[in-house]
Amino acid sequence: MAEHQDTTTIRPGEMFEIPARRGRAIPVNKGQVLRIVNTHGAQVGDFFAFDAADPAVFLSMEHLRAGLRRISPRPGDVLPDNRRQPLMTLLSDSSPGVHDTLIAACDIHRYEQLGHQGHHDNCADNLRMALAEVGVRAPDVPCPLNLWMNIPVAEDGSLSWRAPVSRPGDHVRLRAERDLIAVISCCPMDLLPINGEDAVPRSLSAMIEG
Amino acid sequence: MAEHQDTTTIRPGEMFEIPARRGRAIPVNKGQVLRIVNTHGAQVGDFFAFDAADPAVFLSMEHLRAGLRRISPRPGDVLPDNRRQPLMTLLSDSSPGVHDTLIAACDIHRYEQLGHQGHHDNCADNLRMALAEVGVRAPDVPCPLNLWMNIPVAEDGSLSWRAPVSRPGDHVRLRAERDLIAVISCCPMDLLPINGEDAVPRSLSAMIEG
Repeated sequence: MAEHQDTTTIRPGEMFEIPARRGRAIPVNKGQVLRIVNTHGAQVGDFFAFDAADPAVFLSMEHLRAGLRRISPRPGDVLPDNRRQPLMTLLSDSSPGVHDTLIAACDIHRYEQLGHQGHHDNCADNLRMALAEVGVRAPDVPCPLNLWMNIPVAEDGSLSWRAPVSRPGDHVRLRAERDLIAVISCCPMDLLPINGEDAVPRSLSAMIEG
Repeated sequence: MAEHQDTTTIRPGEMFEIPARRGRAIPVNKGQVLRIVNTHGAQVGDFFAFDAADPAVFLSMEHLRAGLRRISPRPGDVLPDNRRQPLMTLLSDSSPGVHDTLIAACDIHRYEQLGHQGHHDNCADNLRMALAEVGVRAPDVPCPLNLWMNIPVAEDGSLSWRAPVSRPGDHVRLRAERDLIAVISCCPMDLLPINGEDAVPRSLSAMIEG
C-alpha cells in the first residue's frame, strides 16, 4: 500500500501506511470518512479519537458500552465521547466484526510483566508520540477501540487472547461527526498471538475517503 | 448505621454512612482495610481510588481486566492502577460477587438521554465534589468499579441492566497497597432498576477497619 509516504500530509483518496509497531495521528474533519484497512489480515489496530477542539473529550469505551448496551460496536452504531455525544459513526465493516473494547493499550509495564527485558514498542507510547507530532497532548491514555482484537468473554466472565478472525483487506469505515484527531497504533505485541498465530506485528493502511 | 456523622474525620473502627445519592472521599493509608457495606442490600456503589501522591494514577478497569483476564475481580485479586501497579487488594466479599467494570459512571448526559428534565444527582459529579472536599482534582472520571451492579454479558456481547443479587449487610473488604483516596458514590439512578426493582437509591456504609 503506502502510495503516499509524506508523514505530515494526508490527501483524501490516497491510501497511506501505518508501519508495523508504529502509530499515526490522522486529522479527520466533520463528515469525512476514515477507512482503516487490515492489509495483512491479522493485525490489531488500537484506535483512539480526540475532539480536535479539546483533547480531554475523547472516544470512550465505557460510555460506548453503556450507550450501545453491547460490548462492541456494529455497523450503524454511533461511537460516543466521554460526554456521551456522538463522535464517530461506524458506517461499515467488511470483517466478521470481532473487535475489543475491554483491554487497555499495551504499555511498557505490560511487556515488563510478560517478562520482556528493556524497551519494547507499545501502543500507549505510540499514542503519545503520534499526538505530539500534531501538537496535541492528551490528558491520559483512554481505553482504545481495539480493531480486530479477539478477546472472547466466557460465560464465567473470563477472557482469552486469540488471533484475529479478519482477512487480508478487511476494513472498517468510520465517519467523523465532528472535527477530530484519530490515532491508529499498529499493536506491537509479539509475546502473545493477538496479532496472529505467528505473533509478528505488521502494518495497517488507512485512507480519508475522497 | 452512621454512628459517626462528622463529615471530615474518619476514625478507624467506626462505621459511617454515605447518604443516598451522595459520594464521599475516604483517605486510606497503605495497609489499611476499607470495608464497604451494602446496608440495605440492593444499592450500587460506584467505587474509585486515586494514588494519594498523584491523582493521575488511579484504579483502572481496562488494566484490571487485562491483568486478571476476567471481567470482574474476586477475593484475593489485586486491583491495579493505570500503570498496572497494585493499588488495592480485594480481600473478601460476602456477596455473590456480582460487580461491574464495564459501565461508565452516570452523569448529567446519561439522565438527559434517559428523558430526565433538569438537574439529577449523578456519580460523576459526586466523584468531583467528593474529591474537591479533600482538595483533590482528578484529571478525568475513570471508569468505576461498580460494586454490586449487575450487568450480565450475553453470549452475543449484549448487556442488560438488572437488580443487584446482594443482600442487606453484604460487604467487600479492600486493602490499600499504597496511600490512596478512595471515593464511593451511592448511585442515584432511579430510572432503571439497577439499584433494585423499586428503583429507590439508598445509602451505603463504610469503615476503615480498626
